[in-house]
Amino acid sequence: MFRTPVEMEEVQAAALRIRPFVHATPVLTSTSLDAIAGRQLFFKAENLQKTGSFKARGACNAVLLEKERNPESVGVVTHSSGNHAQALAYAAKCVKLPCTVVVPRGTPKVKCEAIRRLGADLVFCHPTPHSRVDTCASIAEETGKTIIHSSDNYDVMAGQGTIALELLEEVPDLDAIVVATGGGGMLAGVSAVAQNIQPKCQVYAVEPVGKDLQRCLKAKQRLWPEPSTFLHTVADAIRLRAIGHLAFPIICKYASPRVFTVTDHQMIEGMKFAFVHMKQVVEAAAGAGVYAGVKLMGEVAPAAHKVGVILCGGNVDLDNLPWVTPLTTY
Amino acid sequence: MFRTPVEMEEVQAAALRIRPFVHATPVLTSTSLDAIAGRQLFFKAENLQKTGSFKARGACNAVLLEKERNPESVGVVTHSSGNHAQALAYAAKCVKLPCTVVVPRGTPKVKCEAIRRLGADLVFCHPTPHSRVDTCASIAEETGKTIIHSSDNYDVMAGQGTIALELLEEVPDLDAIVVATGGGGMLAGVSAVAQNIQPKCQVYAVEPVGKDLQRCLKAKQRLWPEPSTFLHTVADAIRLRAIGHLAFPIICKYASPRVFTVTDHQMIEGMKFAFVHMKQVVEAAAGAGVYAGVKLMGEVAPAAHKVGVILCGGNVDLDNLPWVTPLTTY
Repeated sequence: MFRTPVEMEEVQAAALRIRPFVHATPVLTSTSLDAIAGRQLFFKAENLQKTGSFKARGACNAVLLEKERNPESVGVVTHSSGNHAQALAYAAKCVKLPCTVVVPRGTPKVKCEAIRRLGADLVFCHPTPHSRVDTCASIAEETGKTIIHSSDNYDVMAGQGTIALELLEEVPDLDAIVVATGGGGMLAGVSAVAQNIQPKCQVYAVEPVGKDLQRCLKAKQRLWPEPSTFLHTVADAIRLRAIGHLAFPIICKYASPRVFTVTDHQMIEGMKFAFVHMKQVVEAAAGAGVYAGVKLMGEVAPAAHKVGVILCGGNVDLDNLPWVTPLTTY
Repeated sequence: MFRTPVEMEEVQAAALRIRPFVHATPVLTSTSLDAIAGRQLFFKAENLQKTGSFKARGACNAVLLEKERNPESVGVVTHSSGNHAQALAYAAKCVKLPCTVVVPRGTPKVKCEAIRRLGADLVFCHPTPHSRVDTCASIAEETGKTIIHSSDNYDVMAGQGTIALELLEEVPDLDAIVVATGGGGMLAGVSAVAQNIQPKCQVYAVEPVGKDLQRCLKAKQRLWPEPSTFLHTVADAIRLRAIGHLAFPIICKYASPRVFTVTDHQMIEGMKFAFVHMKQVVEAAAGAGVYAGVKLMGEVAPAAHKVGVILCGGNVDLDNLPWVTPLTTY
């Protein structure tokens, strides 16, 4: 089989590189969720990661590599209003590199403040995917800063792959891992590692309704319209509809072509499972994984007895928890 | 100094006894809360304990001792609508002893179901402290079941003391531990252990407004009216106004006479600190401890650089989170 740019070598190097800056997060278990699921679940608590999401791993790997490859680097730039923005700001701060984040106008003030507190500069753009990409590209060109995309970047994917290294070291005989999927960076990294370490462990994407990933994986073709749009979903961390160009071939090679599709209500139920039974604050994208692991395995992969679930992030707006705010707003 | 019935010997025996049935919970830290507090905080995550609160420790110790002392025991009974009810039901289930819980009429259905799921029988009483005590006593007399009070019981206190054994084993040089206090069972057990292992470590009670514990501790007298009433507080786990008769002398001997008093708003701010910065679901009583550790140490014990905070429980009603539900209802 062809070699991708994200294989064990890159992920193991990433693990060593980022170790001083990220947490080796715990793997949590819950007797009561196991009872509901009828199988053993192992939750990788990336909600407890630096900056509150797994994104710190990929961002740290990319920024540290930027510094290694280009000692004269003038900094990094990205577009994101979410977890990658905080993660990149944190990573850049760790190595004292300047960081600029392009955020769409209308981004909640608390998010902007969190990014600023981590020392990054904010630049506002129009709230369209197109304007984000454009503004980011202009800043890169004008300033010489390096663009670090939130998912479609090999260094970022290798960083996310370290989640699977740690999870499979702690629970080597997993039958399956479920990964909530937006741009596909985590899915690419995690599936590459799992298939190399433990080929019997299937890695499944969990997607919001409307992404239609399974059709693309079966066709081995990116069937999404260009440029990518955002899905209407409660899980803002995975609303990017299309998997990136760089991530897609890796996912085709390593992830299961079978995909779990979840509704907003199901993600919210998954969030509540984590809050109630594990006392963990997780965001809706993590709830998608929890719901898939607890309620959908029986249908999709009934023989998977030991299942890894990645609690990808815990950055929720406590004043707008989705079971309190009426769902009609989504 | 006089020997109390809750000293190292009893707590160490309890630790061995309950080990198969409870979690050795992790000690969590948070860089961002340390920055706000201006000191190092160590959070003992009893929200991750079996049944979602530290009460599982005391209940297990009491039930296992009941079984040791009285092999013919016909079971245990208690009155509680909260964490002790679930804890006792769980403990009794572990050793297959029958368990009856007296709950006030009007207790939310979810709480009743949680207790029933753990195999206990429910008996309803009038929603007054007096009726709870009375009904419980009648059942004990009629059935021969042993009453296990939620806090004013030496075996329960010894069980709660195991929290401090674990915490001080992991962080031996704590300067202080703050303990949210209702009936005083945890405060008695934790302060007895801390003062025996690490005499420089002060153990402070954190109380809701209106409890007036400091005045009692300074007078070394239980100045509360009898029978004890409930305080009007968002933290239902610590609404019992008076410290128990058995716990009080132990607390007078071992705990600091200086008490932290917190308002409902402060407890809620403490809860949010835990949700936002630690991604931990905690209840209002735990929020009281968090608030004291993060915001009040500077005033009360500025020299305490390393502070233990017990996240005593995580059983919250997600549909009535206190920052969403208007506070005027309390």
